[in-house]
Amino acid sequence: MTDIFEKKQSLLVTNVAANGKPVDIFIDETGTIAGIGENVRAQFKGDAEFMIDGDGAIALPGLANTHTHAAMSLLRGYADDMILQDWLSQKIWPLEAHLTGDDVYWGTRLASLEMIRTGTTAFNDMYFFMEDAARAVDEAGIRAVLSYGFIDLFNAEKRENEIKATERLFAHVRSMQNPRIKMSVGPHAIYTVSPDGLRWCAEYAAEQKVGIHIHLSETEKEVNDCLSQYHQRPAALLDECGILTPHTIAAHCCWLDEAECALVGKRGVAVSHNPASNMKLATHRAMPCRELADCGANVCIGTDGCASNNNLDLFEEVKTAALLQKFFWNDPTLLAAPDALAMATTGGAGALGFGTGTLAIGAPADIILVATRTACNTPLHNATSNLVYACNGAAVETTICDGKVLMLNHEIPHEAEILQGAGMAASALVKRAENA
Amino acid sequence: MTDIFEKKQSLLVTNVAANGKPVDIFIDETGTIAGIGENVRAQFKGDAEFMIDGDGAIALPGLANTHTHAAMSLLRGYADDMILQDWLSQKIWPLEAHLTGDDVYWGTRLASLEMIRTGTTAFNDMYFFMEDAARAVDEAGIRAVLSYGFIDLFNAEKRENEIKATERLFAHVRSMQNPRIKMSVGPHAIYTVSPDGLRWCAEYAAEQKVGIHIHLSETEKEVNDCLSQYHQRPAALLDECGILTPHTIAAHCCWLDEAECALVGKRGVAVSHNPASNMKLATHRAMPCRELADCGANVCIGTDGCASNNNLDLFEEVKTAALLQKFFWNDPTLLAAPDALAMATTGGAGALGFGTGTLAIGAPADIILVATRTACNTPLHNATSNLVYACNGAAVETTICDGKVLMLNHEIPHEAEILQGAGMAASALVKRAENA
Repeated sequence: MTDIFEKKQSLLVTNVAANGKPVDIFIDETGTIAGIGENVRAQFKGDAEFMIDGDGAIALPGLANTHTHAAMSLLRGYADDMILQDWLSQKIWPLEAHLTGDDVYWGTRLASLEMIRTGTTAFNDMYFFMEDAARAVDEAGIRAVLSYGFIDLFNAEKRENEIKATERLFAHVRSMQNPRIKMSVGPHAIYTVSPDGLRWCAEYAAEQKVGIHIHLSETEKEVNDCLSQYHQRPAALLDECGILTPHTIAAHCCWLDEAECALVGKRGVAVSHNPASNMKLATHRAMPCRELADCGANVCIGTDGCASNNNLDLFEEVKTAALLQKFFWNDPTLLAAPDALAMATTGGAGALGFGTGTLAIGAPADIILVATRTACNTPLHNATSNLVYACNGAAVETTICDGKVLMLNHEIPHEAEILQGAGMAASALVKRAENA
Repeated sequence: MTDIFEKKQSLLVTNVAANGKPVDIFIDETGTIAGIGENVRAQFKGDAEFMIDGDGAIALPGLANTHTHAAMSLLRGYADDMILQDWLSQKIWPLEAHLTGDDVYWGTRLASLEMIRTGTTAFNDMYFFMEDAARAVDEAGIRAVLSYGFIDLFNAEKRENEIKATERLFAHVRSMQNPRIKMSVGPHAIYTVSPDGLRWCAEYAAEQKVGIHIHLSETEKEVNDCLSQYHQRPAALLDECGILTPHTIAAHCCWLDEAECALVGKRGVAVSHNPASNMKLATHRAMPCRELADCGANVCIGTDGCASNNNLDLFEEVKTAALLQKFFWNDPTLLAAPDALAMATTGGAGALGFGTGTLAIGAPADIILVATRTACNTPLHNATSNLVYACNGAAVETTICDGKVLMLNHEIPHEAEILQGAGMAASALVKRAENA
């Protein structure tokens, strides 16, 4: 019998609750849910190489984090409580100028570790040195959609450079042939990318049949600057450039007005709510989630990078979203627990194109087990309420992605090495920046 | 050698960081910090009955939760996402009508367990059947200030009843002679207690030399109703009745105006910010923390009850406070990490009158150890930032209260029994209410 962490193998998970019912789950050797229900144990017992006793845990689809800059985990706690522009220009950008590919590898390993520990099995990432991010994701066993942060600063020469970097990442990811890793085009935002750059991104995404990952309407300043420069609001500008598609994930969307919500919804865009980051950086307006959902947008959720959150615990984020929607829009019935959780399951999976975010026969075996013998799940009047409002990612005890066990009863292989490697990379990065 | 959980005994905690320095801590058999620093190991090693290797953890004063209704842990997840008045009248009050003293015991045991697990060593509680809450606190080993929720509903007969209930609790707690348990007077709020009731509470608190625990200015409706009924704002009314003192803890304080902040500050009141509850119930305004602090109020923090939060993790609450202050008041520099953490340490300890919320020789040994070999503390550019923005209560590995070890490396004695007892009490309570 081999190590359960070693490779993907058939697996019988017993004694869990899924979709409100007590079930067992059988995962075949391809990483697909082949059975889920009451009689699964009897039906598949002989076929399973491994068994996991769920001990009454709640089984959920692995969560999907639809907006991250994973390697920014190395900047966790480096600078906080500052005005956005000072924070970027005095602290974040000077440090990022010294980033290496190895740093991005370690930062993405650390981020993947934290996501696996807190129940996330797929994420949508935008950053630099993405070939190194891909290596980290490959080794971590998690799923990701990777985009190179395309920033042409309205300069034609720089634009050529960004086009090449994007094409390089695509070629690299294709060569990896890892079905857990996909790429998308990542035009950073309207204030960092020219209309020509945006149009190239839209065309390249269509040609390559991949998605688009962009920041949209995060701050009021972005909207006001757009109105001055382009005499239209950000969503209209993006639409003109072909960026708003059913395969686009737009992060933040705090300052969308009514017409923009309608446009974004009509185009079938996925909108990634990032409440903790928006609150920490004082964006002062919360994404109009209900309006966007009513208009047909796919409302999902993300943590943003660790410099502005400062963690990747999507359970915390779901709670923050549910609280912020109620508080800001002045209605305690908004974003009720089932809808809040769905942002991280069906919403996120749909946005990333990794399965459906449900537990069903034929679905990819991206499954997390949330312990119920815990204070946060006692009493258990309503599991969904507890998952959203009472538990955080620490209640996740087992994480399975693509049929492979990544965490079992809170144990993740090589955790100490990853924490040490990332910690050393972060210290060395700060030292380089300070000595420069 | 006895069990480390069995009783208070002298203790040497090695290899931790406190106040930014690597130290050891010696706790004498009276539960007092007798040594803290670099040479403590050599100085006290022979005197310690037990040793705890902190393995690089961050040592902090145990946190203080300044506003709870602990036994409402039994209602966790029972009703959410509703309009406040419907939520209270259709769900919470009908269930509370069936509460027994035993329920309050189990709910307070569950709450104490959750607080110990997440690093809180003292709390300020207001509820019913408080003699049973006192029994739970006594057994759990935590500290608490207990108040009977005094609600006269503007009725003289009911008021006499509340006076007797308050006096009974005081006699009971005095008879326990447990220095970890104190009592305060708990007039619920201006909309549930008559001015005569408020005045009696103020006089009784002064006479008994104890504090006062009250809800203040939670909703805009409370302010508007007060203006209609009394032609003055809530803080002025409370001041007229003698309620605003340096030993008063006023919870919520969302809708205080400038003059009220000045008044509350002048009287030296402790104001307990409850951001998660305020967001969940859509109070739509955040406590003016900076203004209150500038006016001299002691700004501290609380979780409120589990029906409106829905957990007691004060680390989560501190993060939520720091985020909400920035977001609502539109300034990312507000409630910076050190100030946010201080709400739960020095602020809370001062409000409850349990020590000073610092780690120093002569201070009560209320100490928690936060693991650093975790994702939330990697990298460790800034421990205070990580504690506030990245970690939650799950990073607490050891909790010591009054010199007694309540949790060691995540292990709490009798946890399974407490979870089971509380879970059964909650199910039976719902069954009684539904069959009534």
